[in-house]
Amino acid sequence: MSTPIRLPLRPLTVEAFAPFGEVIEASPERPHFPINAGTTTRFHALAHAEVSGEGRVVLSIFRGQPFALPLALRVIERHPLGTQAFVPLSGRPWVVVVGAPGPAPAPSALTAFLCRGDQGVQYARGTWHHPLIALEAESDFLVVDRVGDGHNCDEVPLDDGTVWITASDV
Amino acid sequence: MSTPIRLPLRPLTVEAFAPFGEVIEASPERPHFPINAGTTTRFHALAHAEVSGEGRVVLSIFRGQPFALPLALRVIERHPLGTQAFVPLSGRPWVVVVGAPGPAPAPSALTAFLCRGDQGVQYARGTWHHPLIALEAESDFLVVDRVGDGHNCDEVPLDDGTVWITASDV
Repeated sequence: MSTPIRLPLRPLTVEAFAPFGEVIEASPERPHFPINAGTTTRFHALAHAEVSGEGRVVLSIFRGQPFALPLALRVIERHPLGTQAFVPLSGRPWVVVVGAPGPAPAPSALTAFLCRGDQGVQYARGTWHHPLIALEAESDFLVVDRVGDGHNCDEVPLDDGTVWITASDV
Repeated sequence: MSTPIRLPLRPLTVEAFAPFGEVIEASPERPHFPINAGTTTRFHALAHAEVSGEGRVVLSIFRGQPFALPLALRVIERHPLGTQAFVPLSGRPWVVVVGAPGPAPAPSALTAFLCRGDQGVQYARGTWHHPLIALEAESDFLVVDRVGDGHNCDEVPLDDGTVWITASDV
């Protein structure tokens, strides 16, 4: 059996996540402007939903059970027909694991990000990703993705115990 | 000068909000099912984004300054070319004021809802609504709406001091 791979947890930034999609956060570096007679600031178009074919964009809430670290990753998946966005509603940090679009990436080619509780992401169409990883407590996320006909989920299991994320970076 | 109108604050429910759009909340009465090998519950398709023409669906964050009650409403607006969803990221309660699609409603025909901090709404296309009303503290909201060509905002000012919402119902 080969040596288990340990993915370092990187901080989520727009630049680091760019190969995988968009970061949804109200930071002063993002385009923003006043609206509503100055009573609201709009951090504008942080992510752009995209669906193919007859698909529609829907808003759902995912209620994720918390995972403890170290965590053995179990599967990666991708949605070839549309983007998928996750925005935490709990304020708690969470973890995103991604691989570039294309053939299923080797476990060593995955990237793990530690997201703050005020950071969401949108996976670009076809970006490989691990299912939702909440931390600390049961946590709700707003999810914006596609419904419609067509095959929109590919899953690739990971051999048990081969890829880990650990708490040492948190 | 006519007597000021005081709008009662009603609790936000799916049924009461149905003429104006969809409620985004993870309640057991909404369609939900397990995903991700049982580690996540998906409260599915709580709202359906809709954009006309060449528009696109984008995700933004609105940072709203808090309002104190009693509050005199100042304007209502509508977006004829697409839905607009607001989901609180702060966990704090907030207020929605709406009027049915069609000609601009009389102030007495507006409806005010007190939303819990775990309740979002999506205004149906053309639904009249007051701009964002955060309470208690500066609060962020995820907003899902349309960008694109075309005229997508009608505004109708309300005479100052004619329509109020008050704290007595909160």
